[in-house]
Amino acid sequence: MGTALLTDRYELTMLQAALADGTADRHCVFEVFTRRLPSWRRYGVLAGTGRVLELLADFRFDAEELEWLGRERVVDSATLEFLAGYRFTGDIRGYAEGEVFFPSSPVMVVEGTFAEAVLLETLILSVLNYDSAVASAASRMTSAAAGRPCLEMGSRRAHEQAAVAAARAAAVAGFAGTSNLEAGRRYGLRTIGTAAHAFTLLHDDEEQAFAAQVASAGPGTTLLVDTYDVTRGVERAVAIAGTGLGAVRLDSGDLGVLAQEVRGQLDSLGATSTRITVTSDLDEYAIASLAASPVDSYGVGTKLVTGSGAPTCGMVYKLVAREGASGTLEPVAKASTSKTSVGGRKSAARLLDASGRAVAEVLLNGSDLDGIDPASLDPAGASLRPLHTTLATGGVVEERWTGSGGVLTAAARHAASREELPRGARRLSTGDVAIPTMSRDLH
Amino acid sequence: MGTALLTDRYELTMLQAALADGTADRHCVFEVFTRRLPSWRRYGVLAGTGRVLELLADFRFDAEELEWLGRERVVDSATLEFLAGYRFTGDIRGYAEGEVFFPSSPVMVVEGTFAEAVLLETLILSVLNYDSAVASAASRMTSAAAGRPCLEMGSRRAHEQAAVAAARAAAVAGFAGTSNLEAGRRYGLRTIGTAAHAFTLLHDDEEQAFAAQVASAGPGTTLLVDTYDVTRGVERAVAIAGTGLGAVRLDSGDLGVLAQEVRGQLDSLGATSTRITVTSDLDEYAIASLAASPVDSYGVGTKLVTGSGAPTCGMVYKLVAREGASGTLEPVAKASTSKTSVGGRKSAARLLDASGRAVAEVLLNGSDLDGIDPASLDPAGASLRPLHTTLATGGVVEERWTGSGGVLTAAARHAASREELPRGARRLSTGDVAIPTMSRDLH
Repeated sequence: MGTALLTDRYELTMLQAALADGTADRHCVFEVFTRRLPSWRRYGVLAGTGRVLELLADFRFDAEELEWLGRERVVDSATLEFLAGYRFTGDIRGYAEGEVFFPSSPVMVVEGTFAEAVLLETLILSVLNYDSAVASAASRMTSAAAGRPCLEMGSRRAHEQAAVAAARAAAVAGFAGTSNLEAGRRYGLRTIGTAAHAFTLLHDDEEQAFAAQVASAGPGTTLLVDTYDVTRGVERAVAIAGTGLGAVRLDSGDLGVLAQEVRGQLDSLGATSTRITVTSDLDEYAIASLAASPVDSYGVGTKLVTGSGAPTCGMVYKLVAREGASGTLEPVAKASTSKTSVGGRKSAARLLDASGRAVAEVLLNGSDLDGIDPASLDPAGASLRPLHTTLATGGVVEERWTGSGGVLTAAARHAASREELPRGARRLSTGDVAIPTMSRDLH
Repeated sequence: MGTALLTDRYELTMLQAALADGTADRHCVFEVFTRRLPSWRRYGVLAGTGRVLELLADFRFDAEELEWLGRERVVDSATLEFLAGYRFTGDIRGYAEGEVFFPSSPVMVVEGTFAEAVLLETLILSVLNYDSAVASAASRMTSAAAGRPCLEMGSRRAHEQAAVAAARAAAVAGFAGTSNLEAGRRYGLRTIGTAAHAFTLLHDDEEQAFAAQVASAGPGTTLLVDTYDVTRGVERAVAIAGTGLGAVRLDSGDLGVLAQEVRGQLDSLGATSTRITVTSDLDEYAIASLAASPVDSYGVGTKLVTGSGAPTCGMVYKLVAREGASGTLEPVAKASTSKTSVGGRKSAARLLDASGRAVAEVLLNGSDLDGIDPASLDPAGASLRPLHTTLATGGVVEERWTGSGGVLTAAARHAASREELPRGARRLSTGDVAIPTMSRDLH
């Protein structure tokens, strides 16, 4: 299926007017950034970049779509003709997927004619806003889990295709597996899951259900032990699977107390290597509160796929510079009071202190970091890590950011970038963003 | 693209174990319901039913998918063989799309063998949870708008395919149009939108931008007047388009104050029929607060597509009855403390008083309303409106619920059901659900 109609109507009506008055060919720079983070977040996590690039390849208006646009009189025939031949031929650069971001970070920059760049607005924002919302929440969860595996199980609480993207975004932020099969197939993610309460209830009693599951999946499986009574469930689980039982899952009740009891019971039964996995409306705070409990892994659903309180990122796609009547590129910005943005083509870098710790997000005028004298940086010994990388050139996408390889690269980028942040950045409580954003030499 | 892999892995591992021990053929009744509503909601709105039925047609495991499942050892070869021939042949009934619901309302009931019914869990919940979250928020917005049109503009703040579903769900709850072109094409929705700030900034000045837009779209267009200065913007808009200007859009600032000023200005310029549309992080509360302002329509984005504080519905898909060893259907339910559900196959009806006003949600044991003596109902003169309708029989979907016709039917159903609720149901503040849910004659 093509992706070109996943677009707001006004992108096409603007195109029509611009084609008619000749401004459609003006060279433009559009920037994606967010104005603020949720009050309880110290950093955001960029995700979806690889998906944007994958979807760009299918951003074509096919005959059926053009026919519909014409029949509905969305645009005139000159515009339909333009759309029929539409291919994005511009350049896209931006933060590498998985990178952390802050207010005003130019996470993606699209350059091309107005005509070709304006059409991408809706699709780019849809992808980055959702995927980054999930990754930003996921990063706090993997951080709170402090090395214990987090498993994504939220498919049923998100739109069926958003669920696939959520599984991918969670992987970018360090999740170890997903329940979503399509995400497994599409992005090479590890898939997980054994049984629901329905499986136990299907059988005449819990013994029969456990026996059937162990017979089918082997004793290394995870048995869900809370359908009737947890203590009886654990007893039956070990009786049937033996002390080599892989894991038990707890999906209700006071998980901290229960995990403690179940751990004691498992150990007393000799099942000392049987793991305990917990699921049940977990979020980053619940995960943190279980840090001292004998829990081996966390299954997270609803709160992950809905961004744990921030289901979208508020990223915008703003024209920051365009060719004027004179033919030169000029910075532009909306002047209204509450939604200011900074015009001009920018580059970005992370200012690191001598020990490699992030100190500030630096936005620089122009498109590269040339001409910055390291000695001019404060604090002494500081360096700038460039944040913009090439994503597409002349409309041709760099494949290294896409597919399952792209997800692995993004996960590595996220781990490194998070590690670089000041220690306080991983606190869960409300507070300031981890590092300030500074503008240098901007118009 | 097929939809069968939009599924949690455990559905398949349960299937494998059930196929092996013979329980896969047991006749099962799965029920979709939610345990609670958000504290500030008095009713929920069911949406997505038509989409579930559309997606069911593509729920097939194709060769490539089977190959992947085999290669990844998700299931064994006997299960792969079952999946290769999989077609849902059971029955689905439920609330009509657009119907309001309450805690425990059995909004969808799937009956079939365990094997065929369990596989649909993830997809059904994904669709109903997201679409109903959006429709439930949308209904409060159209209610607060009190007849003024609400327009959906949230595509950029949701996953790119979720955005299409959101536009559809908003239409179910009374929205008058959407910015999303694919939603327009797929479901016959009216699409809207004229220009963004980028279009004004693209031009050398606001006059040129307005002139280009009016030349392209005619004076009946909507001009966005807040890129620089609203008062100058309105002045220019009328100077260029004439007093026949269709509308002006305000996208920032204190919209109530601004709308008042702009209305006065438009009237003084003779543009008395030019409408004012407002957009800018609106939700149901902001819409309600503008009730006394001269606003003609509301464009809603972020808060709509993210469910205005409740981005998912918490609907679950629970086994409530299944054929036991004896071959008879027996009610089942999980017994753990915090997540109880009521077992047994149920039917549902809305109890209406003599004036036709909703009084209670009644869950009845069994699958129909036969044998209820009207004289036994309280209050006197009350009647029961059955809530379950047939959605699919023997795997064959009833087409009347799908496509653009299904959306129109659902919108009509929603309007009628909302009208039937007690007056207090439309308050926006925190409080009890509009009507209680009662169980009659349940096991």
